[in-house]
Amino acid sequence: MRAVFMYGAGDVRVDTVPDPVLSEPTDALVRVVTACICGSDLHPYHSMPAGQASPMGHEFIGVVEEAGSQVSTVKRGDLVIAPFAWSDGTCEFCREGLQTSCLHGGFWAREGIGGGQAEAVRVPLADGTLVKAPVGEDSELLPDLLTLSDVYGTGWHAAKRAGVGQGDSVVLIGDGAVGLLAVLSARRSGAEQIVLMGRHKDRTDLGGEFGATDVVAERGAEGIAKVRELTGGHGARKVLEAVGHMPAYTQAVGVVRPGGVISRVGAPQYEEAPVGFASLFGPNVTLTGGPAPARAYIEELMPAVLDGSVRPGKVFDRTVDLDGVPDGYRAMDRREALKVLVRP
Amino acid sequence: MRAVFMYGAGDVRVDTVPDPVLSEPTDALVRVVTACICGSDLHPYHSMPAGQASPMGHEFIGVVEEAGSQVSTVKRGDLVIAPFAWSDGTCEFCREGLQTSCLHGGFWAREGIGGGQAEAVRVPLADGTLVKAPVGEDSELLPDLLTLSDVYGTGWHAAKRAGVGQGDSVVLIGDGAVGLLAVLSARRSGAEQIVLMGRHKDRTDLGGEFGATDVVAERGAEGIAKVRELTGGHGARKVLEAVGHMPAYTQAVGVVRPGGVISRVGAPQYEEAPVGFASLFGPNVTLTGGPAPARAYIEELMPAVLDGSVRPGKVFDRTVDLDGVPDGYRAMDRREALKVLVRP
Repeated sequence: MRAVFMYGAGDVRVDTVPDPVLSEPTDALVRVVTACICGSDLHPYHSMPAGQASPMGHEFIGVVEEAGSQVSTVKRGDLVIAPFAWSDGTCEFCREGLQTSCLHGGFWAREGIGGGQAEAVRVPLADGTLVKAPVGEDSELLPDLLTLSDVYGTGWHAAKRAGVGQGDSVVLIGDGAVGLLAVLSARRSGAEQIVLMGRHKDRTDLGGEFGATDVVAERGAEGIAKVRELTGGHGARKVLEAVGHMPAYTQAVGVVRPGGVISRVGAPQYEEAPVGFASLFGPNVTLTGGPAPARAYIEELMPAVLDGSVRPGKVFDRTVDLDGVPDGYRAMDRREALKVLVRP
Repeated sequence: MRAVFMYGAGDVRVDTVPDPVLSEPTDALVRVVTACICGSDLHPYHSMPAGQASPMGHEFIGVVEEAGSQVSTVKRGDLVIAPFAWSDGTCEFCREGLQTSCLHGGFWAREGIGGGQAEAVRVPLADGTLVKAPVGEDSELLPDLLTLSDVYGTGWHAAKRAGVGQGDSVVLIGDGAVGLLAVLSARRSGAEQIVLMGRHKDRTDLGGEFGATDVVAERGAEGIAKVRELTGGHGARKVLEAVGHMPAYTQAVGVVRPGGVISRVGAPQYEEAPVGFASLFGPNVTLTGGPAPARAYIEELMPAVLDGSVRPGKVFDRTVDLDGVPDGYRAMDRREALKVLVRP
């Protein structure tokens, strides 16, 4: 089959590799119908050292081609959504809805498991991992459903972890796909004021469609001042950080109200950050978030996607085939595309 | 009057200074009946540069000698508890119970306000700050009531911020007075298992009296392994950090369960700390806490102190007069005393 590999920063190629096969009785073999490129794929695209080849992609919808003898919840021919972590669904963390900490699970494109930017994927622990979608592979809803793999679930996680509720004032840092879907999530959680910090008009316009009430294009001290002015002078009680770079963290600390929450879902590209008296401790600010257990949210978020009352798939503004994936990375890196859909 | 001043690391003196006087109509003048030395006073005792003189003490109970014309909730002769921050009681943060972020408040021993280790203190915003205690100045309950100024409220804040509730498994880092009263607070909040990490037997014994179910004296990797073994292998859902030094933070990260909470109430002696994928983000750990709004908890905690069902004053194991305060600092610094009561 053909699959996408990254060979180093800026170096994405489509290779021909052996077809995946069932290896455990709990595996399923899934033919990928649609996948996509994630904003987080741009992190290795900027910094991966050369000298290795890493499979890519962690979001996909596909059709089960073959299911292992111990797989009982999906069968050959089912259209399934794969969340960005695979998990057993039965350990103490999965039962609590923290599938990203599954005791027996893991992540795509690591340790012998392929990535979603490919023609097919071996899915471990298929019963715990996959969710059947009640549509055909030609459904127009596929882009919307695909966001349940990661970006919509991740935006939802940001809002959940922050405890966004009725009447809340929320600041959203980052106008990427996750940021925009965090806007949608905050709106659906009842937030009244949603200030979106972002500089790309086409993106913040979509943010407005998803529910943002204010847009702040300024960054740094100017952006912080503007947000504070918009949120009663002392900042917002809930700040969702959907970028992962240090300036976004600094901005979050700057716009959060004393006693408020910063909920991070952008994978941090730093290990150390200010958390002392001057930043988090003094004003009793809570720092929360992490990789979203997207699997935990699929059943909850799917109905509104299926009935069309939300259209999270609007974040996709370009479609490519596998050969077009390297160009897709380039387009996302140059901000020419918000999020690229892949049809292998 | 006589008052305690710190002149630099290790240099505590008792000076004679002008008596405080009312300055604003919202002030009260309080004669200090009992005060104490705080574990956090040891931070400047270790590191304060010479060349200045700083008044000391932020916990005291006293008798109102004179109240300004706009003070209505306390009057001459009342015995009052002063929390470790003064606050107006009316701003948006005070109304939410976050008096440490009061828009018009502040802290003792700063910006022209004296400290509690003195014969008298001018109390700004007396209506918002002081709470009348329904006992006389000869009451045996004074040490217990004095803990409401800070250490009991701070331990309570740690438990509240962590959301400790019925049946919880809690780890307590630090066997100082705050740590021990966080044990008491966790127990009163319904925690079932309370693992106290501390190395001083007399202190951890008191922790046992307050409700600790297990004591771990080991530190570092060994301590982390032991706590994880005691808490089901994956760590505790609620970790209360009552020290403020980096090794305590590292220990907290080591013993917290994925999806769990670290609640800090030890004033951090660092500004940067690990919060990235390897520490907080990957396992979806929440970091919360800050300086306790002790004022918010006094009414809630006082009844059980008054009826004797809790005895938080057991943390005091030495009593000195003002002249004995320098020795009190030395004794606490050498761990010869847990917490020193001051009777000016």
